[in-house]
Amino acid sequence: MTDPADPAASRTAPADELRAFALRGIPELRPGDDLAALIAGAAAERGGLENGDVVVVAQKAVSKVEGRVVALAEIEASPQAVEIATSGEQQEEPRRIQAILDESAEIVRVRPPLVISRTRHGFVCASAGVDASNTGGQERLVLLPVDPDASARALRERLRELTGRTVGVIVTDSFGRAWRTGTTDVAIGCAGIRPLVDWHGHRDSDGYVLHATTIAVADEIAGAADLVRGKLDAAPVAVVRGLDVAGDGAARELVMPRERDLFR
Amino acid sequence: MTDPADPAASRTAPADELRAFALRGIPELRPGDDLAALIAGAAAERGGLENGDVVVVAQKAVSKVEGRVVALAEIEASPQAVEIATSGEQQEEPRRIQAILDESAEIVRVRPPLVISRTRHGFVCASAGVDASNTGGQERLVLLPVDPDASARALRERLRELTGRTVGVIVTDSFGRAWRTGTTDVAIGCAGIRPLVDWHGHRDSDGYVLHATTIAVADEIAGAADLVRGKLDAAPVAVVRGLDVAGDGAARELVMPRERDLFR
Repeated sequence: MTDPADPAASRTAPADELRAFALRGIPELRPGDDLAALIAGAAAERGGLENGDVVVVAQKAVSKVEGRVVALAEIEASPQAVEIATSGEQQEEPRRIQAILDESAEIVRVRPPLVISRTRHGFVCASAGVDASNTGGQERLVLLPVDPDASARALRERLRELTGRTVGVIVTDSFGRAWRTGTTDVAIGCAGIRPLVDWHGHRDSDGYVLHATTIAVADEIAGAADLVRGKLDAAPVAVVRGLDVAGDGAARELVMPRERDLFR
Repeated sequence: MTDPADPAASRTAPADELRAFALRGIPELRPGDDLAALIAGAAAERGGLENGDVVVVAQKAVSKVEGRVVALAEIEASPQAVEIATSGEQQEEPRRIQAILDESAEIVRVRPPLVISRTRHGFVCASAGVDASNTGGQERLVLLPVDPDASARALRERLRELTGRTVGVIVTDSFGRAWRTGTTDVAIGCAGIRPLVDWHGHRDSDGYVLHATTIAVADEIAGAADLVRGKLDAAPVAVVRGLDVAGDGAARELVMPRERDLFR
């Protein structure tokens, strides 16, 4: 029997259901903080992690503990950055544009001051994932992790060490999309899950064999987590429970290979 | 007190959580079927719909009841369709390409036999949303609804009539994305929800005012629903519970306006 007053019991997801909840009380993060320990502690308040859970962590939290933060004051803007920053209808901080250029492997589109580029990881997104942060009165920029798949793997290993649970980890960021308004959260790092689930050869209810149905479940999980993170005023971590996506994939599989990319 | 054996009680979503579950037992659909009645009946097996639920319906189900189905035998392929169908490494059925061209307002990319186009609704997707279906041994093509926002509104009204509950409705399809592998489900029709939630002016945990944070929650909800629809062998309908997204938006708001579109 389960006790309805027991938070652990109330968090169990039936086999045909998913549950997602954000974790409360993760504090402002600093370089070197043990993020996995903070996650394990916050999850314990909710009955603890379970095997098969997917722990979804906003990139900004990961980047902060990894020290991927630069002070605006330390950046020197190139003439190209100044040009992009000042030639649009809205003015931008040229040093912020410089950080974006520094993080970019390739510029995809520019409409000053907006820059859409391909990061060194291969992700195409606005501002190369560079976020502003105003910590303690100092203007800083938060960059994407150097290797978000490695970040996810490290968090996953440390969570196993601390909790004894085998979970998946997804590191997410909010990306705009071509042709659609608004952002959705997507996976930029993964560990312990299959980011793509291939239904190739799966039959639909008519018996017709579906094709081209490789589903980017890591991105759909990232989006589900964003919905509940928003409920808690953009809490940095959420847990998605009840999915069967365990595996050993990486988010770099979500980058369209050059030879298949029709938009490159 | 709630009874843990009561399925309605067990489906309640705490305020900081979302729950998503697919509905079982929706049969093969035919033109004129009362889809809302089938949804209400299937939901009743799970304790019934609740006010504020978002009912997520796969496009194929909506199109079938709306009669947006054409027999392959009734299509005549143009020379352009034959050229696209036969000039790639994989051969395609020219009449299927013709249906895609007929549903397209503008061709965005062609790598035979793959066609990426803008539909008359403004959505950019592969095959103009045209799906194959092999019902009763006859090859048919399922087209997108003529007006998916109107389809969502009609389903929502009928669900209110049948259940007394005020819900949101999202009609979804699986779209590929530029630069990323795999598909995610996105909203092509909405009723009773805000598809975009604007956090403009929202402050992050540092007190920094976030910008450019309009979140396409309708697409994130579509993705969450796809994750549980997949658990039930691609069941056509899922319910997402626990979100505060009530409003009166439409999925056409998710189409990037021409003047803001950098990829047009």
